[in-house]
Amino acid sequence: MQKVAVIGASGYTGVELLRLLAGHPQAEVVAVTSRQYEGLPISEVFPSLGSYFDLRCESLDVKAIAARAKVIFTALPHKSAMEVVPAFLDAGCRVVDLSADYRLHDQQVYEQWYQPHSSPELLAEAVYGLPELYRAQLVGARLVANPGCYPTSVALGLAPLLEERLIKHQSLIIDSKSGTTGAGRGLKESSLFCEVNEGFKAYGIAGHRHTPEIEQTLGQLAGEPVKVSFTPHLLPVDRGILSTIYADLCQDSSTSELLALYRERYEDEPFVRVLPEGQLPNIAFVRGTNLCDIGLVVDERNARVIVVSALDNLCKGAAGQAIQNFNLICELDECAGLAAAPLFP
Amino acid sequence: MQKVAVIGASGYTGVELLRLLAGHPQAEVVAVTSRQYEGLPISEVFPSLGSYFDLRCESLDVKAIAARAKVIFTALPHKSAMEVVPAFLDAGCRVVDLSADYRLHDQQVYEQWYQPHSSPELLAEAVYGLPELYRAQLVGARLVANPGCYPTSVALGLAPLLEERLIKHQSLIIDSKSGTTGAGRGLKESSLFCEVNEGFKAYGIAGHRHTPEIEQTLGQLAGEPVKVSFTPHLLPVDRGILSTIYADLCQDSSTSELLALYRERYEDEPFVRVLPEGQLPNIAFVRGTNLCDIGLVVDERNARVIVVSALDNLCKGAAGQAIQNFNLICELDECAGLAAAPLFP
Amino acid sequence: MQKVAVIGASGYTGVELLRLLAGHPQAEVVAVTSRQYEGLPISEVFPSLGSYFDLRCESLDVKAIAARAKVIFTALPHKSAMEVVPAFLDAGCRVVDLSADYRLHDQQVYEQWYQPHSSPELLAEAVYGLPELYRAQLVGARLVANPGCYPTSVALGLAPLLEERLIKHQSLIIDSKSGTTGAGRGLKESSLFCEVNEGFKAYGIAGHRHTPEIEQTLGQLAGEPVKVSFTPHLLPVDRGILSTIYADLCQDSSTSELLALYRERYEDEPFVRVLPEGQLPNIAFVRGTNLCDIGLVVDERNARVIVVSALDNLCKGAAGQAIQNFNLICELDECAGLAAAPLFP
Amino acid sequence: MQKVAVIGASGYTGVELLRLLAGHPQAEVVAVTSRQYEGLPISEVFPSLGSYFDLRCESLDVKAIAARAKVIFTALPHKSAMEVVPAFLDAGCRVVDLSADYRLHDQQVYEQWYQPHSSPELLAEAVYGLPELYRAQLVGARLVANPGCYPTSVALGLAPLLEERLIKHQSLIIDSKSGTTGAGRGLKESSLFCEVNEGFKAYGIAGHRHTPEIEQTLGQLAGEPVKVSFTPHLLPVDRGILSTIYADLCQDSSTSELLALYRERYEDEPFVRVLPEGQLPNIAFVRGTNLCDIGLVVDERNARVIVVSALDNLCKGAAGQAIQNFNLICELDECAGLAAAPLFP
Repeated sequence: MQKVAVIGASGYTGVELLRLLAGHPQAEVVAVTSRQYEGLPISEVFPSLGSYFDLRCESLDVKAIAARAKVIFTALPHKSAMEVVPAFLDAGCRVVDLSADYRLHDQQVYEQWYQPHSSPELLAEAVYGLPELYRAQLVGARLVANPGCYPTSVALGLAPLLEERLIKHQSLIIDSKSGTTGAGRGLKESSLFCEVNEGFKAYGIAGHRHTPEIEQTLGQLAGEPVKVSFTPHLLPVDRGILSTIYADLCQDSSTSELLALYRERYEDEPFVRVLPEGQLPNIAFVRGTNLCDIGLVVDERNARVIVVSALDNLCKGAAGQAIQNFNLICELDECAGLAAAPLFP
Repeated sequence: MQKVAVIGASGYTGVELLRLLAGHPQAEVVAVTSRQYEGLPISEVFPSLGSYFDLRCESLDVKAIAARAKVIFTALPHKSAMEVVPAFLDAGCRVVDLSADYRLHDQQVYEQWYQPHSSPELLAEAVYGLPELYRAQLVGARLVANPGCYPTSVALGLAPLLEERLIKHQSLIIDSKSGTTGAGRGLKESSLFCEVNEGFKAYGIAGHRHTPEIEQTLGQLAGEPVKVSFTPHLLPVDRGILSTIYADLCQDSSTSELLALYRERYEDEPFVRVLPEGQLPNIAFVRGTNLCDIGLVVDERNARVIVVSALDNLCKGAAGQAIQNFNLICELDECAGLAAAPLFP
Repeated sequence: MQKVAVIGASGYTGVELLRLLAGHPQAEVVAVTSRQYEGLPISEVFPSLGSYFDLRCESLDVKAIAARAKVIFTALPHKSAMEVVPAFLDAGCRVVDLSADYRLHDQQVYEQWYQPHSSPELLAEAVYGLPELYRAQLVGARLVANPGCYPTSVALGLAPLLEERLIKHQSLIIDSKSGTTGAGRGLKESSLFCEVNEGFKAYGIAGHRHTPEIEQTLGQLAGEPVKVSFTPHLLPVDRGILSTIYADLCQDSSTSELLALYRERYEDEPFVRVLPEGQLPNIAFVRGTNLCDIGLVVDERNARVIVVSALDNLCKGAAGQAIQNFNLICELDECAGLAAAPLFP
Repeated sequence: MQKVAVIGASGYTGVELLRLLAGHPQAEVVAVTSRQYEGLPISEVFPSLGSYFDLRCESLDVKAIAARAKVIFTALPHKSAMEVVPAFLDAGCRVVDLSADYRLHDQQVYEQWYQPHSSPELLAEAVYGLPELYRAQLVGARLVANPGCYPTSVALGLAPLLEERLIKHQSLIIDSKSGTTGAGRGLKESSLFCEVNEGFKAYGIAGHRHTPEIEQTLGQLAGEPVKVSFTPHLLPVDRGILSTIYADLCQDSSTSELLALYRERYEDEPFVRVLPEGQLPNIAFVRGTNLCDIGLVVDERNARVIVVSALDNLCKGAAGQAIQNFNLICELDECAGLAAAPLFP
């Protein structure tokens, strides 16, 4: 049994980690922290967890927690994460960090999009936790930088095409749509029910902070720098990301040829489902799971491929992938705690 | 490993049964039937199930299915169910029937609210599958009449008060609200997205078919006939039933006294959570689980108690309870396959 | 052309007032105030209003505003309202106050449910702005206490029965459900999209502040004190209140007899629609309008009548009724600005 | 007063036409037809319309209707429309046809995407009813082909850029998202509440029938043939279309320069709002109106412009634009009946 702690448990990523850990056969949650709710039972912060956990939120005392837990999930905002991750590592813990703080390998790029980095020396060690691309490095790793939700949907959606050099990557356009849990649990007028419900909007056009993370992974896949236009939108649903990705083809390819390539590439991946020709993903069909569904269509009139990928932003886009990474670094069954089928409807 | 079949798999109760069975450690689904989708892989009917089942929908051939499966879940409309249940029993299967056909003990009452009954001789044998009330009879039973969603929420909400004779049952008013999966997957204008979304309405006032089922259970609890006013409403959500129940108190009681009674009554029940004083249930906190949350408040100005119960209509209100009953009749761990925590948000 | 001001324009009641005033043929909005958004164009606070208003939010300077406007809509929280209403009256304005501050005639009751009242001398003058009950007093009034959303739905739903002494009012149970705009635009975790969406809950059971307001009106209709059990619930929709009201009948009456009574009572009311037998209200059918739809069913098995009323909480439950009252006090056509048909879907 | 009829009144476009006509100062609805609901009061088909219309649905008898109405709104599916439009014209009526049947000028293109055309001789006469582009031709026209919802959002979003030859049109990518009323009121499993709610998907990739209509208009604006990749998606909301449009720039331009161009182009258009720099459209801010909101951002890293346009698919995307066209062909005030402000929230 692995003893784990969830740092920053009162956000949506926190509750999703706890939901999944409640059903994990080899993990035991020994501590949860929350500044806002210190002292309160976690089952009062999230009544859904009542009868699953008998823990109170504590303050973030690295030593005290490291004395009990061996693996730490940091579900903190960027900047807050890097203030504690090094200390947990120093205390002998492994860390799966769900923030953006260790995702970018290049300190300069990080500082351009975020703010100064206080532990840049860890950037080289941190493994980018996308198992479908970096599984070998994750096994046994000490620090995992758990990917962003949008970047996961894009990297899985494009990996086969970039690996095979089938698309002109200067043409890449990524039109993504995310459920509202992606905006977090912080109090903002724009997150109120009546502001989101029955609405739909784009935001952060040409400037969203997931852009460099997307470009880093796509660049590694392509073997050369990649620039994308990335447009996120806010969906009036709780969960789900769907990315519609446009790329000009280098040569004629049919929908069925490309689907065959995808099926081969992802054949052994437990969490990627390549849909049959004629079917397209729907965020409703992956709800609550670590799955990523992928479909594609070649637009022959325009020599362009249109890939659609769907995942649950809280799960494969955050907490589920973190559990998958936890399983890998602890050398457990990669699917442990992640086997439940999607909740539809 | 118990071999099971799901009859009528293409409805919302069917997909929920399959979702839960996919994660059940001691059940193997060997057949699914659907008249409408005969021949189609179930993963095309419900793409959410892709990679979980490699089964095609077949037509309903009792012999062929009974040769493979030992326990049958019939997820058919009333009337259709009683056309096949006796044959499955005759073929040596056990049956958990999710329709209304075997819930009412009195044939006359059944025929008054539904239509003629073709196998009334089974009414005496069928066990009403509410384990919190009838667990002893369920262990080893051959035919379970799985309760309706509304009646489950009402019976669990009122059992302690009726068992202790604390309320005037001629005053009982039940105001229930159900998510739209309760209306089924059939094609009706009133079930279209744009007819339901951003709407809310009552329906079937003073005439809903769950009324006699509610009254039967409450009457058994009270030890004498009970009549209720039952008003169902349609909520623009996928899942969830919340029942707000009003009853005049026979004597002065405080909120905390009654909550203590509930906690004691449900102490050993794995699927009933009695909320602390000051907290009230929300359907969001039981989503996807077999849980029933209960809260209550005494309205002292009016000497009345107001009980609120919440459950997931597809789960504790249908498929989850069916699995719980399956566990009981097969003498498995009652919670097998039902342990996952609620999906919130 | 009546020059009007909206005090507290940045809430949901504020934007609804402005939406309706934008289309009012005899009103001109000359000032809008907001502490939070002082200096900002109202079309930035509410982009929906872009091209309809060329006004900036100003701070609340009674003299400056009274110099320009003759009628004031105060859309402030209770307590804040009574801090400015007397000054506007002193400055010669008429006021339609949308807060709770002048709704209760009895200062003691107000202070028991709210806090000390700073202008109790106005309680006797203020006219409770429910035109269907108090039209005569509203014509030409100086101060209107615009009713609460829940109380409007209840009073209209019960008036004919109470006026005719047809129900036992000690049996009154009111189960109401409101859209989330009713919770206001303030920042609260419980108002976040992901906390409300796909959820449903009761709140404030046996203690909601609309209870004394409901009882005051029902008591006037009944001619003697009335006590009710009132349970509000939160619906995951933007707009709408539906109240399901239960009352024991004093004598046998049929659904059609009672509907005939309602039709007669409301025959000349432009904003009350009594539905035909067999039809029940849906909040979707009154969206965006000043209408209140009413249906009812007699539960003969229990000698009880169940009335269902539906209105738009922002419109007939707040801003629309305020415009109706404005029309009355200014002796304009009562329907001016309120004629648009409901937005369905 | 213009006497008008709505043919095919029982769909969502039909009810929206009636909603708007109910408030039109110079239109009187003298007939509504519905095959499905013949004989029923329209207020039973749509209870929202109760007290606004005292009409019964009749069968489609061209002579009988042409004897009463001078302008006909045909809200029928394609193919059904062209079966009656010529007869109404022959009977001396003007027609605003909301189907696709007269939108494409080229019979071959129509027949390639739809089916054989039975009145191709009218294609040359029909005026494409996008007033912002073709106002002069619409004044006094006899037959208006009311544009599709997606094409309207795209044409208004791109007109200034194409007219000024600022973009490389071979690069055009259109990623559109529509509310569910766009799928119509027909009974389809995919339109059920529980299939749409909390879901999101693309459909009809590289093959949607609005593609040739989009390309026809863009080609006219560009002065040469244009091909686009057009991807529609289904939003879990009632109303609204948001199109995110990507185009490579021919030369360096800044966001503010392009916005200035848009403001100038649309300066006198009553129904187009160009948003200030830094603001982006949201479908919630145009709900229920004939408005189209447009925002844009230049992605300087990729020399690409990203335009976002939002409208209400039932209103500016269908019925509202039809009323605007009706006003033009009858030489009424173009805004008559369309002045109401958006319903937010």
